[in-house]
Amino acid sequence: MRPNYPFNCWYVAATSDEVGAGPLGRRLLGMPVVLYRSGSGDVVAMADRCVHRAYPLSEGWLEGDRIVCGYHGFAYDTDGHCVHVPSQENVPIGARVRTFPVIEQAPFVWIWLGQPGAAALRTPPPTPWLTDTGWSSSGERLRVEANYLLLHEHYLDLTNVFAMHAAHMPPGIDRLPYLDEVEVSEMSVGYTRALPPAPLADWEAEATGLPRDRDYHRREQGTFVSPALHVQRWAIDTEDAGCFEQLRIHGFTPESPTSTHVFLQIAHGYATDRVLVSDHLRRFFIDMTRRDAAVLEVVQRQLSEEGEPRRDINVKADRAGVRARRVAQAMVAEEAGRPTLRSIPTAGG
Amino acid sequence: MRPNYPFNCWYVAATSDEVGAGPLGRRLLGMPVVLYRSGSGDVVAMADRCVHRAYPLSEGWLEGDRIVCGYHGFAYDTDGHCVHVPSQENVPIGARVRTFPVIEQAPFVWIWLGQPGAAALRTPPPTPWLTDTGWSSSGERLRVEANYLLLHEHYLDLTNVFAMHAAHMPPGIDRLPYLDEVEVSEMSVGYTRALPPAPLADWEAEATGLPRDRDYHRREQGTFVSPALHVQRWAIDTEDAGCFEQLRIHGFTPESPTSTHVFLQIAHGYATDRVLVSDHLRRFFIDMTRRDAAVLEVVQRQLSEEGEPRRDINVKADRAGVRARRVAQAMVAEEAGRPTLRSIPTAGG
Amino acid sequence: MRPNYPFNCWYVAATSDEVGAGPLGRRLLGMPVVLYRSGSGDVVAMADRCVHRAYPLSEGWLEGDRIVCGYHGFAYDTDGHCVHVPSQENVPIGARVRTFPVIEQAPFVWIWLGQPGAAALRTPPPTPWLTDTGWSSSGERLRVEANYLLLHEHYLDLTNVFAMHAAHMPPGIDRLPYLDEVEVSEMSVGYTRALPPAPLADWEAEATGLPRDRDYHRREQGTFVSPALHVQRWAIDTEDAGCFEQLRIHGFTPESPTSTHVFLQIAHGYATDRVLVSDHLRRFFIDMTRRDAAVLEVVQRQLSEEGEPRRDINVKADRAGVRARRVAQAMVAEEAGRPTLRSIPTAGG
Repeated sequence: MRPNYPFNCWYVAATSDEVGAGPLGRRLLGMPVVLYRSGSGDVVAMADRCVHRAYPLSEGWLEGDRIVCGYHGFAYDTDGHCVHVPSQENVPIGARVRTFPVIEQAPFVWIWLGQPGAAALRTPPPTPWLTDTGWSSSGERLRVEANYLLLHEHYLDLTNVFAMHAAHMPPGIDRLPYLDEVEVSEMSVGYTRALPPAPLADWEAEATGLPRDRDYHRREQGTFVSPALHVQRWAIDTEDAGCFEQLRIHGFTPESPTSTHVFLQIAHGYATDRVLVSDHLRRFFIDMTRRDAAVLEVVQRQLSEEGEPRRDINVKADRAGVRARRVAQAMVAEEAGRPTLRSIPTAGG
Repeated sequence: MRPNYPFNCWYVAATSDEVGAGPLGRRLLGMPVVLYRSGSGDVVAMADRCVHRAYPLSEGWLEGDRIVCGYHGFAYDTDGHCVHVPSQENVPIGARVRTFPVIEQAPFVWIWLGQPGAAALRTPPPTPWLTDTGWSSSGERLRVEANYLLLHEHYLDLTNVFAMHAAHMPPGIDRLPYLDEVEVSEMSVGYTRALPPAPLADWEAEATGLPRDRDYHRREQGTFVSPALHVQRWAIDTEDAGCFEQLRIHGFTPESPTSTHVFLQIAHGYATDRVLVSDHLRRFFIDMTRRDAAVLEVVQRQLSEEGEPRRDINVKADRAGVRARRVAQAMVAEEAGRPTLRSIPTAGG
Repeated sequence: MRPNYPFNCWYVAATSDEVGAGPLGRRLLGMPVVLYRSGSGDVVAMADRCVHRAYPLSEGWLEGDRIVCGYHGFAYDTDGHCVHVPSQENVPIGARVRTFPVIEQAPFVWIWLGQPGAAALRTPPPTPWLTDTGWSSSGERLRVEANYLLLHEHYLDLTNVFAMHAAHMPPGIDRLPYLDEVEVSEMSVGYTRALPPAPLADWEAEATGLPRDRDYHRREQGTFVSPALHVQRWAIDTEDAGCFEQLRIHGFTPESPTSTHVFLQIAHGYATDRVLVSDHLRRFFIDMTRRDAAVLEVVQRQLSEEGEPRRDINVKADRAGVRARRVAQAMVAEEAGRPTLRSIPTAGG
C-alpha cells in the first residue's frame, strides 16, 4: 500500500551535529540514505546502497570528499558518480547512485526525497527561533514506532494533557477552551486558543521565575507547518514583564509507514542566556514527549492490527488534526495523480 | 483465513480473582477485551478500544462504575456508552463500545463473544467440582502458543504419557487399554477407559495416602464439554476406602488462531481439607501441563510452517480427539453459514 | 516463490562428528531432516516429522536402530517405516516417513534431498584434501543469514579483501590482477590468478615459517565445484622449499532461501603434523569467515527489502561469480521443467 506521506516535501534528515566526519546511514521515507559532510562543509546525501552489491555505503568510510564502499572499495564523489573501482581500470558506464538535494538550516539538515526537478520550487520552512538571538533552543532526536500523522494529530490536540499530564496544567484549569480559530492554507493548518487566567504550574514557575501569587493569561498556538514540521507555542502574558514564550518545534520525518524520526527542539524567548532555564525546559518536554511516544506506539500497534479503514470517531478537539490529515492526504493523492477535493471546484468554494 | 474456533460459545475470560479494582486487558478469540468489576461486584466486559482513537481502555482507570480512557479521558459506563468527553459539553452520537455478556461461576468468569442475541440461548457448562463442598480445587493460568484444538486433542488422548511422563503411570502398566466407549452429542465428546489393576504411582501414593502393597482399579474419563472446556477424571477405586478422584478442568480460550489461554483447575474429591494434598496435586499437574505445552508449541510451529491441509495420520487412540475436532468444525461451519455434515440427512443416520 | 537452489545435488548435511548417539535435527533446503547413526555406523537421514502429529523425530530418542517419537512413542526403522505404535497392536498402513540417501566422506556427511531416483546418477564431489595423508585439515560450522549464492559469489571474487581484510594481503599488493582464466563446465566454474611477487603477509609468515626477507610468487584458484561446494586455493611458491598450499573448503547448504549452513574446512599441504600451524590457520580463516558473514547478512537484509529483480551492476571481477549463478539458475530451471539457455542450441554453440 502507498504510504500516507508525501515525497515532494522538505523533511529534516538529521541535526547538524549528527553529520560529521563519518558517514551517517538513516532510513527516511522508507529509503536508505547516507549523509556526510564534504571538505567544504556541505552536507551530501545519497542513496545508501552501492551500485555493485546491496551493501550500504554508510558501512564504508570517507576519503576526502569521496565515500568508499566497505565491501569492494567502490568510491563515489559528492554527485553520486562512481569514480573508482579498485579491481579494474575503468568505472562501469552508468554507475551512479541517486543524490538528494540538501539545505542546512542549523540545527536542521533538510532533505528533498521527492521528484528531483521539484526541489527548487519549494524551500524548507523558516525556523527563526532556532537561530535568532531573541531565542535559545536545544533538543533531542527520538524514534517513535508510530505513523507520522499520529504524531501530528497528537500535538494538534492538546486536550490529552488532562488524562496524560494533568500535573503540568495551570492549577484550576481542568478543561481547555474550544479553539478560537483554525486557519488552513495549501500546506499548513494552525489554531490558536486563549486560556482563562490561572496561577502558574510548577514547571512554568521554575522556568520563568515569575511570582506564583497571581493569575496569568496564556495563549496556545499549534501549527502544522507542513507534513514535516509542527510548531507549538505556549505564551504566558504578564502585565509588567512582557510575554514568556516557550516553543516546541517538532521535525517529524517518516522512517517507514509505522515509524517516525522526531527531531524535537525546545526554544524559549526569555532568559536566553540562562542555561538552567534551557536545561529545565528541555528535560521537561523531552520527558513529556517520551510519554506521548509510548501512548502513540500503543495506538499504532492497535491500528496496524485493525487495518484500514480507520474506525475513529472525531470530536471537536480534533478540528485541527483532521484538517492536517486532509492536507497530507491531498498531497499524497496529487503525487499519485489522483484527483483531490482541492482540485475539484465546488459551488461553495 | 477464518479461525477454527466458534464464537457462539461461552469461554472462560478470566478467573474471579483476576478481575478486581483495576481494568484487565486480555485478547480473547482475537479481540481485545477489557474486564473490570463494577461497584455492585458484577464483572463488566467490553471492547478494549476507545471509540475516539485506537487506545486500549485497559490502559486507563476506573472512576466508580465508569472506565476512563488514559489518552483523552473519554469515560464509559458499564453498558459501553461514552458518557463524558472532557474537551466538550456533549458526547458524540453513537459513541459506544461493544459490551459482552458475562456470567461469573467462580472461579471462572465466562464470556460470550458471539452473536449478541444468541447468548441467552446457551449457558456456560456447569463446573460443580469447583464450588461443591465435596471437592477442593485450585489452579493456574498459562498461555500456550498453540491452537486450542491441539490442546483438546492432546488431553483427549492420554496415550502420550508413556513417551512423555512414563514415571507417572502406575507400575506395570505400559500401555493403555482401548477406549471403552466414545459418546458424542451435539457439542460434547466423552470417553471412558478402565485400567487393569496395578500398584500406585508415586504421585498417587503421595496424594491419597493409600497403602502401596496392593493393586487398584482405575477409571479414566475425558470429556470435551465444549470447545471452551475439557474435563479429565482419574479415579482410583478401593474396596474399603471408597473412590479417590482427581480432576483436571481445562478452560481453553483461544487468544488467536495459534495461541490459547489455559485456565487449569485441579480438583480432588477426597481429603478436601488437607492443603498438602491440594498443593501436591496442583504442583504435579501444573508441571505436567507445562511440559505438555512445550510439546504442543513445537507442534504448532511445525504446522504453521507446513500450512494446510494437515498431513496427519490418525490412529485408534485419536478416536475421541477426532470427534471433538469435527464438533468444533461443524460449529464453525454453521457460523459461516456453510452446510455441515450434521445438517445433511444420511441413510445411516 | 521457488527457491534459487537446486534439489538434485549432493549437499553437506553435517560433519561426521555431529552425527552420533542421539538424533540430530537440522533444516536443509527448507526441509526438517533428522540424522542419526545406526548400530552399523551408517548415517540414517529422514524427514524430521512423525506421520501421526507434527512433532519432530529429532526431539525423541534412539532404541537400537530405531528412532522413537517423543510425543506418542511411534517407532521407525532405518527405512522410515513406522514399526511400532504403542497404543495399538498394528501399525497403520502407509505409515512411513521419507528417507534420504546419505554418503559419508569424512568429515562430511553428504545428503541427497532431490528426486529419489536420481541420487545414484551423481556422486558427491571428491574432497581428497580432507582425508589424504599429504594434507591436514580442521574446521567449523557456521550459520549465515544469507542466500547460499551470496556466499558463492563472495568467495569467487576475492577483490573484496582490500576493503575488508587489507592487512592480510601481501605487502605491496594493493590490487589483484584480472583473472587469468574462467573455466565453466556443466556444473562447475573455476578461475585462476597469478599474483606478482611480494613479501609475506603476517599470517603467511606465521603459518609457513618462510623467511620474510624475499618476494614470493602466489597462485590463487577458486572453484564453484557445485552449488554445494566451493574450494579456494592459495599457493605460495618457493624456489627451494616447494609450494605451500592453503585451502578453504566451503560446504554451502541452504537452510532456507535466506540462510545457509557453512561447513568450513581449512586444509594445508605442508607441516601436516604441526598442530600449531593448523590452529593458526583455522583461527585465522574462521575469524575472516565471520567477518565475511556479517557483511553478507547486511547484503541479504537489503536484498530482502528491495525484492526482485536485483539491481546490481556487475564488474569484471564478478566474471566467475556470475557464471556460477548462471549454472545454479540453469539447474533450478531444469528441475522446474523450464527450458534453459543450456538446452537451446545456438549457432555459436
